[in-house]
Amino acid sequence: MGKFSTGSTNMIVRLEIDHSKITFGEIATTIGKSGGDIIALDVIRAGKSKTIRDITFKVQDALVTQTIVEALGKLGGVKVVNISDKTFLMHLGGKIEIAPKVPIKNRDDLSHVYTPGVAKICSAIYEQPSRAFSLTIKRNTIAVVSDGTAVLGLGNLGGLGAIPVMEGKALLFKQLADVDAFPICLDTQDTEEIIRTIKNIAPVFGGINLEDIAAPRCFEIERRLSEELDIPVFHDDQHGTAVVILAGLINSMKIVGKKLEDCKVVICGVGAAGVACTQLLVAAGVRNVIGVDVNGAITSTERYDNEVWNEYASYTNPNKETGSLSEVIKGADIFIGVSRANLLKVEDVKQMAPDAIVFAMANPMPEIDPEEAEPYVRIMATGRSDYPNQINNVLCFPGIFRGVLDCRATRITEQMKLAAAHAIASVVKEHELNEQYIVPTVFNSEVVEKVKHAVTQAAYDSGVARKEHNVME
Amino acid sequence: MGKFSTGSTNMIVRLEIDHSKITFGEIATTIGKSGGDIIALDVIRAGKSKTIRDITFKVQDALVTQTIVEALGKLGGVKVVNISDKTFLMHLGGKIEIAPKVPIKNRDDLSHVYTPGVAKICSAIYEQPSRAFSLTIKRNTIAVVSDGTAVLGLGNLGGLGAIPVMEGKALLFKQLADVDAFPICLDTQDTEEIIRTIKNIAPVFGGINLEDIAAPRCFEIERRLSEELDIPVFHDDQHGTAVVILAGLINSMKIVGKKLEDCKVVICGVGAAGVACTQLLVAAGVRNVIGVDVNGAITSTERYDNEVWNEYASYTNPNKETGSLSEVIKGADIFIGVSRANLLKVEDVKQMAPDAIVFAMANPMPEIDPEEAEPYVRIMATGRSDYPNQINNVLCFPGIFRGVLDCRATRITEQMKLAAAHAIASVVKEHELNEQYIVPTVFNSEVVEKVKHAVTQAAYDSGVARKEHNVME
Repeated sequence: MGKFSTGSTNMIVRLEIDHSKITFGEIATTIGKSGGDIIALDVIRAGKSKTIRDITFKVQDALVTQTIVEALGKLGGVKVVNISDKTFLMHLGGKIEIAPKVPIKNRDDLSHVYTPGVAKICSAIYEQPSRAFSLTIKRNTIAVVSDGTAVLGLGNLGGLGAIPVMEGKALLFKQLADVDAFPICLDTQDTEEIIRTIKNIAPVFGGINLEDIAAPRCFEIERRLSEELDIPVFHDDQHGTAVVILAGLINSMKIVGKKLEDCKVVICGVGAAGVACTQLLVAAGVRNVIGVDVNGAITSTERYDNEVWNEYASYTNPNKETGSLSEVIKGADIFIGVSRANLLKVEDVKQMAPDAIVFAMANPMPEIDPEEAEPYVRIMATGRSDYPNQINNVLCFPGIFRGVLDCRATRITEQMKLAAAHAIASVVKEHELNEQYIVPTVFNSEVVEKVKHAVTQAAYDSGVARKEHNVME
Repeated sequence: MGKFSTGSTNMIVRLEIDHSKITFGEIATTIGKSGGDIIALDVIRAGKSKTIRDITFKVQDALVTQTIVEALGKLGGVKVVNISDKTFLMHLGGKIEIAPKVPIKNRDDLSHVYTPGVAKICSAIYEQPSRAFSLTIKRNTIAVVSDGTAVLGLGNLGGLGAIPVMEGKALLFKQLADVDAFPICLDTQDTEEIIRTIKNIAPVFGGINLEDIAAPRCFEIERRLSEELDIPVFHDDQHGTAVVILAGLINSMKIVGKKLEDCKVVICGVGAAGVACTQLLVAAGVRNVIGVDVNGAITSTERYDNEVWNEYASYTNPNKETGSLSEVIKGADIFIGVSRANLLKVEDVKQMAPDAIVFAMANPMPEIDPEEAEPYVRIMATGRSDYPNQINNVLCFPGIFRGVLDCRATRITEQMKLAAAHAIASVVKEHELNEQYIVPTVFNSEVVEKVKHAVTQAAYDSGVARKEHNVME
């Protein structure tokens, strides 16, 4: 990250040009000499003495842009108003749009999809509400909802600041799993208000993907919505992460020859992801999980102001271990970090059991530098795309929502999450499996297929699928 | 409507077939003999003794379907589970979908539209919120919001029942004006709750189209949202209708050689559309509008329980006329009906001024049968597609939202609505104008173009446009 050349890329600079002081030829010459190849010009505003222009040019490396901008800045009569790179350009006007599925070519088409024909569809749904699943976009549409309180690693950016992430997610949902997802970015950060708002807009959706909502409010929001709505609600930062971590661990077990139920697992960071991950591991049979947060191991011998931690203590840390991460890490088979950079020391790793497994997921900097840890661990995974074994939620959320929409599930059960984890793990074949390849890559199309089938099957088994099976009793 | 053959169409019948009692060949023969041409078969559920199949067949007229269904019903071992026609088929799975604008082909694309690249877009918006208009779908996306309290002429169907109309509207927005519109169908009918919900989800939208919300709550919802949001809010059933009616009247004036300011206008139905229509006519210079509702003419000499009517009386009916529709219609130049079927009698029309203009907009049955009224009126318009002069909101809403999005308007002023009405009227050229052609048809692409330009210009003139003009001072 940042170590490599970005390759040739297009950049746009917006310049305010004072005609009385400089000609466009001089500006073009400056850009050319500094390494930019002009490919387009746009007038943004024209005036008597000054003009604002966008100049698009190609550079062999994004770093050259800085050189060009500095050279332009030294010219008299030129003011650099703005610089846009490829990432900005890809975001202009947003990343998704609405597309008609039935084009209206003539008045007859119009009379079917709009008045007067649409009236009988409305009436049919009013008479039997479940018909909305077949006669409207509810069949294939979910909301990607954020209040913007925990946007990526950036913190509380609010609803507007969260939009680009939710759009990106919608893009991935469509491209990877043909799920129609629409970004709902909230202008409130109040738990009750969020719950009410999502319930109020639920009719058009077949599922709710919560995203980038900070702990602890994310727990209450998800729990209440799951109880009060009849469509699945899934906080991806919690459960998506948990599912993919479990998938990685399932395959890691095959490599090290251990069983999850015999492993001692230390989870560093008992927030949204840490709690969900622990619960899924317990559901998968792990008996000894110890959560560690700022004050050390969470244990039932203590009382915490954070009610979530008191509950957490009730199903974890059976041996009531206490102390810092460095203390409880001793003899651990697995370390899972969902916390902050550099919390795990090399000395800690050395204390782990043989064939140590370290998933250091903090973003963008992991809990331990993978290169420092490498000599002392058997399997290392991170959240980063520039190291092997990237634990990426993209492996989970498209397939899991494809599955629940296909069977019209009312909720996502623990059994369905376990099924998703096993499905992801199964994409890596026995003969492919090794320390550097424990989870498939995000572009492997088998992932969505397998997750979808496993989740749908588990939904029927859990009794939460509403769509009739195509085999009669 | 209903008088004509619908032409050949595809139908689907879902049958539960008991194999022990009948063969598929017998069923196929029955359908063929009754006038159906089988074109597809699908197994929905298969079982040991019974199978559920969907049979798609073509008929030359939808009425033939009834014959086929009756014939099938008489066969032993066959149960007709369901029948779907073309309208239902066009609605399967909904009428719109989400489409990616930037495909993700590889890991590099992913790194720009999603993590890690997307982080800098989020930060850029957080630093300067107005950037959401260029870097997210906010630039081109509106919500089509309904609480389902007044769905078409059907009444209160609730949020789910409203979805097909809102999808249809989204389809028209995209196809006619390249506006991305998403249906928000509410599971609440409480005014305050609706206001709060829409405010909470506003960040991602550049405008709000309210739809099919019953009076009087629609007034308060629109007023409050307009005040409390910085994006345009427009209740189409009110203002869309008003704009298109005004467009029709502007052109009617050219035909009858009168001036709007000199006309006596009677509006029948002082609900959502009636009030909006009156206000726009007053803004257009009409001095004598009289609203008539169940108790007769609204006048400032009375006090009403309905607060909206008391306010209405303050700017209408300057001569304080009282009495029933039949009384106040005397000498009226223009009748506008936004009420119920058959409220206007032929005797009433005979009392109107010479060159009477009657817009009878009640749906599906107008305030007066156009054929009965015809001998006594100069210009007749309805909301129906099977008579000349269809007053259809589709002439207004796509262009008006295209315009406000293009200039990033904060609201839609009366001046912008007037501009839209004049623009719609201007599409009908002088030499084309006649009593049977006062407004353009909905598929005339000039409409959106002209409305868009007029609305944008009026937005700049009204001082509500946020996007900088491309000419510097």
